[in-house]
Amino acid sequence: MSSLQHIHGGNLKVASEKFGYEQRQFIDFSANINPLGPSPRAMLAMSEGLASITAYPDPDCRELTAALAGYLHIGSDNILFGNGATELIYLLVDVFKYKKALVCAPTFSEYGLAVLSRGGEVAEILLAEEDNFALPVEEIIARLPSVEILFLCNPNNPTGRLCSKQDILRIAAAARECSCMVAVDEAFMDFVEEKDNYSVLEEALNRDNLIVLYSLTKYFGIPGLRLGTAVASREIIARLKAAKDPWSVNTLAQIAGVHSLADAEYIKNTKILVTQEREFLEEALQRIVGLKVYHGVANYLLINIKDTQYTSQVFVEQLGRRGVLVRDCASFKGLGNNYLRVAVKKREDNLRLIEALEDFLRGVVK
Amino acid sequence: MSSLQHIHGGNLKVASEKFGYEQRQFIDFSANINPLGPSPRAMLAMSEGLASITAYPDPDCRELTAALAGYLHIGSDNILFGNGATELIYLLVDVFKYKKALVCAPTFSEYGLAVLSRGGEVAEILLAEEDNFALPVEEIIARLPSVEILFLCNPNNPTGRLCSKQDILRIAAAARECSCMVAVDEAFMDFVEEKDNYSVLEEALNRDNLIVLYSLTKYFGIPGLRLGTAVASREIIARLKAAKDPWSVNTLAQIAGVHSLADAEYIKNTKILVTQEREFLEEALQRIVGLKVYHGVANYLLINIKDTQYTSQVFVEQLGRRGVLVRDCASFKGLGNNYLRVAVKKREDNLRLIEALEDFLRGVVK
Repeated sequence: MSSLQHIHGGNLKVASEKFGYEQRQFIDFSANINPLGPSPRAMLAMSEGLASITAYPDPDCRELTAALAGYLHIGSDNILFGNGATELIYLLVDVFKYKKALVCAPTFSEYGLAVLSRGGEVAEILLAEEDNFALPVEEIIARLPSVEILFLCNPNNPTGRLCSKQDILRIAAAARECSCMVAVDEAFMDFVEEKDNYSVLEEALNRDNLIVLYSLTKYFGIPGLRLGTAVASREIIARLKAAKDPWSVNTLAQIAGVHSLADAEYIKNTKILVTQEREFLEEALQRIVGLKVYHGVANYLLINIKDTQYTSQVFVEQLGRRGVLVRDCASFKGLGNNYLRVAVKKREDNLRLIEALEDFLRGVVK
Repeated sequence: MSSLQHIHGGNLKVASEKFGYEQRQFIDFSANINPLGPSPRAMLAMSEGLASITAYPDPDCRELTAALAGYLHIGSDNILFGNGATELIYLLVDVFKYKKALVCAPTFSEYGLAVLSRGGEVAEILLAEEDNFALPVEEIIARLPSVEILFLCNPNNPTGRLCSKQDILRIAAAARECSCMVAVDEAFMDFVEEKDNYSVLEEALNRDNLIVLYSLTKYFGIPGLRLGTAVASREIIARLKAAKDPWSVNTLAQIAGVHSLADAEYIKNTKILVTQEREFLEEALQRIVGLKVYHGVANYLLINIKDTQYTSQVFVEQLGRRGVLVRDCASFKGLGNNYLRVAVKKREDNLRLIEALEDFLRGVVK
């Protein structure tokens, strides 16, 4: 059990020791965080509210839950906040004791790790590169009878591939027939254009086998504080809540959430910036000989580097020496040594990524 | 399952709505937090480090783990940090799948709730008031063969009662004979004089059925940020770590921990202040007719109010109207409506508690 490995982007501490840069000198493309950083309103509120850490957090996150309920136009009792969405993934597995899970790889690894770490089994469907990693809906439906929970990530991390609401609901309906839960991680859905065509958040409210995980960490740029939520029927939320560590959502994360959700300007600017820069970056990366970029819809892009003849480890090393951190996708099942994931950042940072890639591929050894 | 109730002190939000005070106008004796507040060094470091919340927390808490290892003179691989000790209680139950637990009531309720919320059973031994709530060592040993885990809290919350190291080790040795785990929560041990006679932290390093939970939330005054740790053998720590949400310890809690542990002056002053004020408060409370105060060793005191003819609810209400929050112990199994728990605070606050109690008991209705 102790051999389970949690490998993720964003570990600046390790990178700074490896490459000899100060943490703040790196441009970190390895973690998919809002390039604007946290909301200025949220930062101010946290700074002013720092003294409030001397009291216990509100276990019910009441102000925050009311704020999100208003923002999403859903009921407060359809919402459960957690210490990042990851806490809620583990909680879901622990409370409902799921022993057999299905995931479509490559995807975020914590779904499988949560089940494996509790002694369960994880079945995998490998997404096909030649299909640009589209979800094989029929194959998923065929596998549902043999599992207890299906984890989907939409848009998927790291592929960036979206699945339509219609397909997710078809899967959920089939899953219901065999008493299978469907957990849809919409951590990056807020970045998606016309997200109403893809999000099943509303549909989760009245179904007994559908739960949406929703992260505020990425869009609101506060991964260091952790903030995620589950949206589901009142019954599912009540069961999860009763079984949850009551204080897991720290006071500053609650403050940050309330003030971020109220910062309409920042929310709008984020969407505009990320959309514009993703399009810029996608195009610029495509122009680099040897790279294949998959179309992205969120704040990150998946790059296939097979044609460069270098492995992802070489890329990480060479870019790291140039002060640029990217995510080696070798730890994602099904991707081997041929993929990198990069976050979408501000223009000057994106230009540095392009420059570092071109510099490396031109054969300049640094 | 949804009827499980997590009732704890320190919920200022609810209290402020109920009694119509601003949160900061209350003197909160209901949560057992360092009366000095957080370490000034830690506050400064958090304030300066606020921008670091835009990066993911170090999943290995390496700097913090090294700091605690140095502080406790133990190995880094004997330590696992969590989002408060409560996360680690739940993790322990989830990883080792404990279905039958033994607790000695009254005690901190999350041990039992963690097991019950996963569908397990909790057996209880009621501590005897006439014995000043001492642990009945022989009775505990006799019950071990029928459970998988025993939770002890030392000093116990809310009774303040200490158990000797010798007795805990006797229990642990007996538990080993029947493959029972013993989890000792030493959340308040740092406040205890001559703690080496009571703490089994060192003994936990080399035993396969003993784990110590250790909180930094209380001593270092950061309940809003959460910080707890488990100390055990390398093997136990490795199993827990592999099964843990990797990012559960937020960046600011890590910063606070590192700088609090380095603040020797604050650590010393805390011990001096709490010891002095606990003795003052214990004596002053004993002088109030109708109150029986149990001898305390940490930063809180348990008060028996039976002889006043008022219930704990009346006390909470009457003191709340006077701007003073105390912990109604009615939610602790075995205490009924006859007990309050109060934190040890600074002299001026302690005087306000005494004054409010005397004012109420003199029959002044407010």
